[in-house]
Amino acid sequence: MQKTAKESLITMTEMIFPNDTNTFNNLMGGKMMYWMDIVGAIAAQKHSDCGVVTASVDNISFQEPIKLGHVITLRAQVTRAFTTSMEVFIEVIAEDIPNKLKYATNKAFFTYVAVNQSLKPQSVPQLLPETPEEKILFDGALRRRQLRLILAGKMKPKDADELRAIFEVETELDFKLKS
Amino acid sequence: MQKTAKESLITMTEMIFPNDTNTFNNLMGGKMMYWMDIVGAIAAQKHSDCGVVTASVDNISFQEPIKLGHVITLRAQVTRAFTTSMEVFIEVIAEDIPNKLKYATNKAFFTYVAVNQSLKPQSVPQLLPETPEEKILFDGALRRRQLRLILAGKMKPKDADELRAIFEVETELDFKLKS
Amino acid sequence: MQKTAKESLITMTEMIFPNDTNTFNNLMGGKMMYWMDIVGAIAAQKHSDCGVVTASVDNISFQEPIKLGHVITLRAQVTRAFTTSMEVFIEVIAEDIPNKLKYATNKAFFTYVAVNQSLKPQSVPQLLPETPEEKILFDGALRRRQLRLILAGKMKPKDADELRAIFEVETELDFKLKS
Amino acid sequence: MQKTAKESLITMTEMIFPNDTNTFNNLMGGKMMYWMDIVGAIAAQKHSDCGVVTASVDNISFQEPIKLGHVITLRAQVTRAFTTSMEVFIEVIAEDIPNKLKYATNKAFFTYVAVNQSLKPQSVPQLLPETPEEKILFDGALRRRQLRLILAGKMKPKDADELRAIFEVETELDFKLKS
Amino acid sequence: MQKTAKESLITMTEMIFPNDTNTFNNLMGGKMMYWMDIVGAIAAQKHSDCGVVTASVDNISFQEPIKLGHVITLRAQVTRAFTTSMEVFIEVIAEDIPNKLKYATNKAFFTYVAVNQSLKPQSVPQLLPETPEEKILFDGALRRRQLRLILAGKMKPKDADELRAIFEVETELDFKLKS
Amino acid sequence: MQKTAKESLITMTEMIFPNDTNTFNNLMGGKMMYWMDIVGAIAAQKHSDCGVVTASVDNISFQEPIKLGHVITLRAQVTRAFTTSMEVFIEVIAEDIPNKLKYATNKAFFTYVAVNQSLKPQSVPQLLPETPEEKILFDGALRRRQLRLILAGKMKPKDADELRAIFEVETELDFKLKS
Repeated sequence: MQKTAKESLITMTEMIFPNDTNTFNNLMGGKMMYWMDIVGAIAAQKHSDCGVVTASVDNISFQEPIKLGHVITLRAQVTRAFTTSMEVFIEVIAEDIPNKLKYATNKAFFTYVAVNQSLKPQSVPQLLPETPEEKILFDGALRRRQLRLILAGKMKPKDADELRAIFEVETELDFKLKS
Repeated sequence: MQKTAKESLITMTEMIFPNDTNTFNNLMGGKMMYWMDIVGAIAAQKHSDCGVVTASVDNISFQEPIKLGHVITLRAQVTRAFTTSMEVFIEVIAEDIPNKLKYATNKAFFTYVAVNQSLKPQSVPQLLPETPEEKILFDGALRRRQLRLILAGKMKPKDADELRAIFEVETELDFKLKS
Repeated sequence: MQKTAKESLITMTEMIFPNDTNTFNNLMGGKMMYWMDIVGAIAAQKHSDCGVVTASVDNISFQEPIKLGHVITLRAQVTRAFTTSMEVFIEVIAEDIPNKLKYATNKAFFTYVAVNQSLKPQSVPQLLPETPEEKILFDGALRRRQLRLILAGKMKPKDADELRAIFEVETELDFKLKS
Repeated sequence: MQKTAKESLITMTEMIFPNDTNTFNNLMGGKMMYWMDIVGAIAAQKHSDCGVVTASVDNISFQEPIKLGHVITLRAQVTRAFTTSMEVFIEVIAEDIPNKLKYATNKAFFTYVAVNQSLKPQSVPQLLPETPEEKILFDGALRRRQLRLILAGKMKPKDADELRAIFEVETELDFKLKS
Repeated sequence: MQKTAKESLITMTEMIFPNDTNTFNNLMGGKMMYWMDIVGAIAAQKHSDCGVVTASVDNISFQEPIKLGHVITLRAQVTRAFTTSMEVFIEVIAEDIPNKLKYATNKAFFTYVAVNQSLKPQSVPQLLPETPEEKILFDGALRRRQLRLILAGKMKPKDADELRAIFEVETELDFKLKS
Repeated sequence: MQKTAKESLITMTEMIFPNDTNTFNNLMGGKMMYWMDIVGAIAAQKHSDCGVVTASVDNISFQEPIKLGHVITLRAQVTRAFTTSMEVFIEVIAEDIPNKLKYATNKAFFTYVAVNQSLKPQSVPQLLPETPEEKILFDGALRRRQLRLILAGKMKPKDADELRAIFEVETELDFKLKS
């Protein structure tokens, strides 16, 4: 069984409230990751028609401070499915609506495992990428997975045959998504 | 100026409440990262005597589900300081106290930048590692930083001369910290 | 100046957590209205490029109970702009993803006033309806506004020349949106 | 069986905290409705000695901005009981205590249905109005119910024999309650 | 200037939600004290027409567990005013409404100081007790204040001439309020 | 069976967020007590290896205002165990890290009862004090317990043979802990 990336696409919008901010009145990184985890879990649920638990989050960098009162939009969709796990790509856009200012802020990859009520992993449909961007994300998923396994101590670097590739392709993707 | 890792050590304890859990009654990964970000920011404040903002978080994997009513302890300390940024190592231990069960759950590296009230980066003291573990963390920080810069698209893989090393040393550290 | 309804369209997704529920483990009506107010305010901000305050909410009925762990999607868009105020239409869809169950739950009309930082009302762009549904909503807005003014004691029933019409058209719209 | 309106009277007080406010430091309309729903549910529970779910909320208009740090008092009491549902009238008074400023802010009618644990509607005691105000509210309840049913698409306008009356009486009540 | 106890009387109602409870599904003592502090502060604000800060809380014992879904009512009123401080008496009643069960749970004395925006203490009106109960509370306030000062290390036991009396009168009051 | 005080020692760190503060931007006393109750409960759980409920809290005075953005550290450890209950001593230190300001703020004694899932009290290990401070706290616990029982109306003042002593010793302890 196969499902498209679009079937799992989910959009979440949040307004930045006082308790979401640090002492500079900017959104805390930890609150952003809290919302990312929720939107990513919903995307993974939609792909798998199943409950999910978070397995890992990849490196995230925080560049633009997001101010109190601004609005953020989180878009998540599954990039690739493995036997029982799914990688989800999450992009965050922030807006200062009264000042017509819109800026990209964060991108992240979260991985979820589909589980039943006793937390036993369940097999999930394969993901069928359709657009060029979805295909780049699909291809990169394998390399990101190797990096994840190595960083979690579950794979030896010498077995990661796609290891070198990840760095080159990742930045290339980055370029394409930005332009 | 130099400060030891111990001077930034901070311990935070949280009990898992209903709103912190997913539909399986386990702690949500996003809530865990929310707390990690706070405890890490406090450690970075203690090292720099300055306000800080989150710059990045490295790959985190979630292995053990943590149940409603369990207690988690987050320990954070600075591993290495760069010009205006600091890497913080965060370890989480969970406990089911009535059943005398204690289990390691997560480790993470967060990076913070010291800033003044107008968000301009401020220089920070150097970190002086003392124990063997602190030295391993201090040495690894350089390699993790290169990986971070590459993944954020700020460094080209070919310039990362310590790139290969990171995978080997990371797992070695992992082994030492676990044993 | 004119803007389309689509330019203000906003989608917000929330997962139902324990603290959002009543003693039957169903989403509380009050929490639903809390989220509606936020998503509606963002839509009104997008139309007006201005801060907004809530002026009124029309009659809402709650039909389907929404369970803990289900996911709701709130869609909001401006239906018509008056001098300084905007009517926003909000629809809520609930999903029990693991059981592939999706059900419409609530519809509501909220009205917002665009204001500057000293809370002085600001004029807003006119709304240009495009689709047949947007036109029905645009036409009905005038009648709903009269009902609102009467219920708020700001218009006398005898001056509400479109008063009779509202009931007939409202149910007609309802029929069209449901079919 | 009959119960008086007074038996269901309930008073709730809340201080406005930072997270309850919008970017103007005023109480959000959505948070106000959240509290109204809770206080109304308690009044309906007291009348019915039963669990309740929210069935509908009537048109609410927001007139006075309520500032951070001010205190609001919500008073709720059942106005009329039908077979298994109850209409509850909720009034909100705001106070800026240090400045001895007290101002009426909102009035609302919420409707609740008494249900057992499997959400099956339960019959409720009749309401016996005692004071002149309670009688006005009791009489108006029938007309408001017709409007509610029409707006929810459950009654045809031509069957609402008390339809015209509602507008006239409503504003009259309004006048009496204000004076 | 004098004010009666009744002028500061304030009633607050809260429904027990999942996040307010411990792992036994009972209200946490800490959450109860959180609400007590808010309701007491409002009573002290009403007496002083001034902002207030919490100065101390007297011994509180928790006897009855309060269940998830139950409703608590907190009643607070000033018992006696000193130069710039006020003692507030807070009583909590819990109700399991569907089961018609109502039980007293806690009583507490909180003390607040009236302050201006730069936190400088402000003088407050004297309190004029009217009912027999209010007079007992008024008389006891002096003795409770001595105990408070001693326990805070601000008065020597030998200077507390009303020290012995407190224990006898306190239990007497307790008896009267209960019967 | 015996356990040392150190075995129950627990440290909790919290950063002061907007919603934790009153209108002076200082931490609310009620929020402080909320956190004290949680950290104290964890210490009591660690001593008893059992679930616990809060039985009482002793007089607490609030001296130093704690500002928004400051960090507080709560240290809790059991001082003495009785048949099924434990007294826990909680100390709070606040820090304004960027300004290198550190100040003691509050001390409190909370009492907890160990219970099983049906809330039946369970016997707990005895506490073995080791350091001079722990011995002072251990000895004072008996006197504080008598005061608690008297204030809760469960002991008659004339039976409290250690009654006089408490005031003298308490202030002495106070002196020692401060110096």
